[in-house]
Amino acid sequence: MDLSSFITSLATSFIIFVILMILFAWLSTKPGNTVIYYPNRILKGLDPWEGSRSKTRNPFAWIREAFSSSEQDVIAMSGVDSAVYFVFLGTVFGIFLISGIALLPLLLPVNITEKIARLVDSTGKNAFDDLDKLSMAHLKEHSLRLWASVFACYWVSLVTYFLLWKAYNHVSNLRAAALMSPEVKAEQFAILVRDIPASSEGYSRKEQIDTYFKSIYPETFYKSLVVTENKEVNKIHEELELCKKKLTRTETIFAEAKDGPRPTHKTGFLGLVGKKVDSIEYYNEKITELTPKLEAAQKVTVKDKQQAAALVFFTSRVAAAAASQSIHARLVDTWTVLSAPEPRQIIWTNLPKTFYAREIRQYVVYFIVFLTICFYMIPIGLISAFTTLPNLKKLLPFLKPILDQDIIRTVLGAYLPQLALIIFLALLPKFLMFLSKAEGIPSVSHAERAASGKYFYFSVLNVFIGVTIGGTLFDSFKDIQKNPDSIIPKLATSLPGNATFFLTFVALKFFVGYGLELSRLVPLIIFHLKKKYLCKTELDIKEAWAPGHLGYATKIPNDMLILTIVLCYSVIAPLILPFGAVYFGLGWLVFRNQVLNVYVPSYESYGRMWPHMHVRIVAALLLFQLTMVGYFGVKQFYYTPIIFPLPIISLIFAFICSKKFYKFFEATALEVASRELKETPNMDLVYRSFLPPCLNAEKGDEEQFDDAVSHVSRTASNV
Amino acid sequence: MDLSSFITSLATSFIIFVILMILFAWLSTKPGNTVIYYPNRILKGLDPWEGSRSKTRNPFAWIREAFSSSEQDVIAMSGVDSAVYFVFLGTVFGIFLISGIALLPLLLPVNITEKIARLVDSTGKNAFDDLDKLSMAHLKEHSLRLWASVFACYWVSLVTYFLLWKAYNHVSNLRAAALMSPEVKAEQFAILVRDIPASSEGYSRKEQIDTYFKSIYPETFYKSLVVTENKEVNKIHEELELCKKKLTRTETIFAEAKDGPRPTHKTGFLGLVGKKVDSIEYYNEKITELTPKLEAAQKVTVKDKQQAAALVFFTSRVAAAAASQSIHARLVDTWTVLSAPEPRQIIWTNLPKTFYAREIRQYVVYFIVFLTICFYMIPIGLISAFTTLPNLKKLLPFLKPILDQDIIRTVLGAYLPQLALIIFLALLPKFLMFLSKAEGIPSVSHAERAASGKYFYFSVLNVFIGVTIGGTLFDSFKDIQKNPDSIIPKLATSLPGNATFFLTFVALKFFVGYGLELSRLVPLIIFHLKKKYLCKTELDIKEAWAPGHLGYATKIPNDMLILTIVLCYSVIAPLILPFGAVYFGLGWLVFRNQVLNVYVPSYESYGRMWPHMHVRIVAALLLFQLTMVGYFGVKQFYYTPIIFPLPIISLIFAFICSKKFYKFFEATALEVASRELKETPNMDLVYRSFLPPCLNAEKGDEEQFDDAVSHVSRTASNV
Repeated sequence: MDLSSFITSLATSFIIFVILMILFAWLSTKPGNTVIYYPNRILKGLDPWEGSRSKTRNPFAWIREAFSSSEQDVIAMSGVDSAVYFVFLGTVFGIFLISGIALLPLLLPVNITEKIARLVDSTGKNAFDDLDKLSMAHLKEHSLRLWASVFACYWVSLVTYFLLWKAYNHVSNLRAAALMSPEVKAEQFAILVRDIPASSEGYSRKEQIDTYFKSIYPETFYKSLVVTENKEVNKIHEELELCKKKLTRTETIFAEAKDGPRPTHKTGFLGLVGKKVDSIEYYNEKITELTPKLEAAQKVTVKDKQQAAALVFFTSRVAAAAASQSIHARLVDTWTVLSAPEPRQIIWTNLPKTFYAREIRQYVVYFIVFLTICFYMIPIGLISAFTTLPNLKKLLPFLKPILDQDIIRTVLGAYLPQLALIIFLALLPKFLMFLSKAEGIPSVSHAERAASGKYFYFSVLNVFIGVTIGGTLFDSFKDIQKNPDSIIPKLATSLPGNATFFLTFVALKFFVGYGLELSRLVPLIIFHLKKKYLCKTELDIKEAWAPGHLGYATKIPNDMLILTIVLCYSVIAPLILPFGAVYFGLGWLVFRNQVLNVYVPSYESYGRMWPHMHVRIVAALLLFQLTMVGYFGVKQFYYTPIIFPLPIISLIFAFICSKKFYKFFEATALEVASRELKETPNMDLVYRSFLPPCLNAEKGDEEQFDDAVSHVSRTASNV
Repeated sequence: MDLSSFITSLATSFIIFVILMILFAWLSTKPGNTVIYYPNRILKGLDPWEGSRSKTRNPFAWIREAFSSSEQDVIAMSGVDSAVYFVFLGTVFGIFLISGIALLPLLLPVNITEKIARLVDSTGKNAFDDLDKLSMAHLKEHSLRLWASVFACYWVSLVTYFLLWKAYNHVSNLRAAALMSPEVKAEQFAILVRDIPASSEGYSRKEQIDTYFKSIYPETFYKSLVVTENKEVNKIHEELELCKKKLTRTETIFAEAKDGPRPTHKTGFLGLVGKKVDSIEYYNEKITELTPKLEAAQKVTVKDKQQAAALVFFTSRVAAAAASQSIHARLVDTWTVLSAPEPRQIIWTNLPKTFYAREIRQYVVYFIVFLTICFYMIPIGLISAFTTLPNLKKLLPFLKPILDQDIIRTVLGAYLPQLALIIFLALLPKFLMFLSKAEGIPSVSHAERAASGKYFYFSVLNVFIGVTIGGTLFDSFKDIQKNPDSIIPKLATSLPGNATFFLTFVALKFFVGYGLELSRLVPLIIFHLKKKYLCKTELDIKEAWAPGHLGYATKIPNDMLILTIVLCYSVIAPLILPFGAVYFGLGWLVFRNQVLNVYVPSYESYGRMWPHMHVRIVAALLLFQLTMVGYFGVKQFYYTPIIFPLPIISLIFAFICSKKFYKFFEATALEVASRELKETPNMDLVYRSFLPPCLNAEKGDEEQFDDAVSHVSRTASNV
């Protein structure tokens, strides 16, 4: 890529960005759009535009707001997980900024002033265009100027260690502060018990569990909640809720229509076939019919569908924290414990999966992910080969008149080959999330971390390594065929060339990506369409603008990919550093606004995402250091061994961080849990917050649970 | 090795065994020897020869006794660790017995009846002697008879899985039964806390620790015992004890001599030089001088030499068990906890070592062990080369007259070359134990496990693999030089040959080894010599016959070596199976006697040695399976892939065992710790049992500890 096309690409991206910013500034001041641009504030009951700014709104006010917001504001509006995400963005921004400040003035002059016989590559073109002159590729073999690059490697590594260490410590403090808050948080009083062995005859699960824990914790045990098989009761509950919703909707329509005919619908498929009925009457009947059915199903579920998992509640945080970290049974694959996740993020269906089922599922999922990452091109290639225009006409003859139109043929001809790939890439995050849940993971936050890890491997392997190696092999396939030994020098000379590609890639990501993110064009359009054509009730409208959460499972792997690319090229092509810094700096700014105003977190894991990110940043650093070892080798630099200690230092750094901080992110330290509470916890409230909605609605079940409790005497000690 | 020399070797070993047995039968009935043959019974206050058998003792009575003793007897006389050792011996005996019963009648006829063109090896001798005909080597390549060997591999593996599983479960039950015993055991009420961070100014360590744990465990915390730097006080304490002992001794001599001169000695080096003093007066003076010095030193130690580790006591077993498994601090490399070892096996000097010091020491030790195992022949070779007779004469000229004598020259000439190796092998276990302690391990039992692991690698690598590969390479070095590809068939044909060597090796081990073990000739001779020439007081005599403990650190690796050898050759040369069975069966019998009557265990780890042994048995099985895969490959057996699943099954088996049982051997399960106690524990007694002897003697220190306690209010909550 030469300089002019590079600048063209950059300029295009920038223009799109400016347009999107102007759109945002204009659209966000319209009162009808507040639900799109300030949903988090609205849901929290705050005024979207604070105070006086409601009329004369400065289009850049959001920047000032983002900068002036403190970490505490973020935690208050969006929880610790969001605050940790900003620590991540800030840390990486810091790494690139400090690295850039030292490296650009040092490396660019050193590289550009090297006198070198102009190489001519196989295509006869000049191998060095203007951008490449700024990179390490411009240095001669054995050149003493490579010492500057050696210094740069150490500088980047040391800056990374230092900032990562500070960040880990900071995040650990954030987590501790949140966990020792004097507020009563239900999940801090509960543990999750799985793999409960078969009960001896005559005892219900509930009795078995209560007896067991009462004998171990005679003073702090409060109650247990046995996990039940809720499929059936859930179905009835959902049907009932749907009927209630439809009734409200029909009534609203009827009320608005005034003196119109009573609304009717057909009971069959999609309301298209079947008997015609009066809607309001029909739904009312359905509700009166379903309510006792639900109650009966709840009774049956609670009594007969108890499964081998339970939530156990304690009257003290320390007791729960200690219980979640201790083995309880002699056979340690039974009565396995875990600190309870928040009620809203429990994946109930995964709880009763047994220990070995979870293990097997995990390995099967790893294997599927491995296949997906390595060989996803094969099925996609096959599908692309078969979904050509002639094939489509043959298989779906009724499409023929449409496909014969010129314009449609041109568009389809252009996009059909990539269609499978586009659909695959769009569905991949959902697929990985599905796989992660299939592992038997008990909480959504954990599943998101697992999916994020899988996506990271996919993106690094396919985008970064794929582009680098693939591009080189493709460009110089014939040369390599002739002379297989030339592959390493080929790779080495192509590295800086790829750097230019990645420069534009990063720029595109932040200009267009953040532009779209901030302007929220897509949700805006969808909301207005829905509001106009579909929404009837208040609830419908509210659902139409529900902002959703930040989606760490795709967001973080994307950031990680940029981080990996920038870090790996930081010394080879230092020009990438400012681009990386802008990506993370701008990201910090844009998401500060989005987190404060838009997204509503769907769970709180108290920063457990951080160790996941930390490990991957260190892995990226390691990849950078190993790349540099290889590249110095290609440059035949005599003192290459001088950077051998770097990868080892990285491993030691990772080891020390993990030993010093990691376990606290897996479990709650007792010194943290032992802080005093503001008030004595209302244990009944704590317990009720964990009841799944399909069982929570009615009162009957609670009494039944109590029944089970009363069978067990307080002094029972043998299990 | 041909048949006749094999039988000669076997017969010699057997004759030695018979002689030793007769000696044992004769010597053990002499009343003067009871302290050598029944020390454990005597120390437990039991009659060495129960009831009527004191006079007309049947020389084989010990066999009946060994067989009739139950596991409970062993636990009562020698603890759970000994019982676990018998489970190990019994399990391996079972594996070899059941394997042998199926394999010998199947494989021997199949192997011996194979018609094969007689191979002639490079030396011109017949490659198959009579013993080799019984082995797999006698089977032709591609032979369908190899199916019998395939079946044998599966049989041996399945028998091993089944018996190991039963054994693990059994040992786990033994451990659980011991841990939930209603007796009060001091170590179950304590945890070991290490890596305590620097205390804030103005607070003593003691206050810091008490405040910290009181705020986390307001109800169950009892007291803490800060580890102190005892070097100085220990020195004074030992000096004092030595003086007291010498005083008793001198007084005994003086009393026995009746009207003899008052005993005197010189105060200088070894009593050879210096001022002559009256011994009784001198020691009395010394004691009156040292006693206040000790008290002063104790005060200083307890007050000023508190270190960053402590034992923390709880009033309940469950609290202590849960506390030992939970992280306490936000920075998880501080306040690290561990369940407390027994007081008698704590390695006090290792307790204050910091987390990272321990890690570094561990890796340094691993590296030293690696060097020792791989390259120990180099220094030994060098030393041997220099300690020749001429060199000795040159370096130590005063030895010349002795060395010039013919007989001494002959003996030295024969043994001098191996002298370094002999000394090395004798010192190796002690060296490995020293290294294991240097890792910073807090308890003797753990250090013994670590040393045992290291010794296992040494013996398997050097004896088993060394003999197999070394022997082959040495025998056919020239052939291999000519044709490097022939190394694999060479190794394969030499495998059965080595089997004969190992047969005699195993037989030697059990005949001579167990004969010496049972007859206790060496301790007997040493005891009688000491008694005659050195012992003056009762205490001296008691020390002279002190039996010591079983010494798992060398015993278990030796058994493991035999196990590995027998398992690996079980299918190739099935004749080794009865030898293996006899080794472990006879071992069970002999050690049943030794454990009941002789050895006194020096610690109790509640069977924590078992997982260590289990993993190594599975590793030996894996080695066997991989050897067989290779050997079938050499035999060019078409269906070799049929045994590929075996190693995978072994890995899965190891994984499941570890997941199901292992953690309980690392920590106490709470359901076990929650069993009721016979009586309310006397916490002061529990606490005092952990005081090191040099601090325990006096009362002063205790009050000082109490002083420190009283500074801290009960309601303190912030640390």
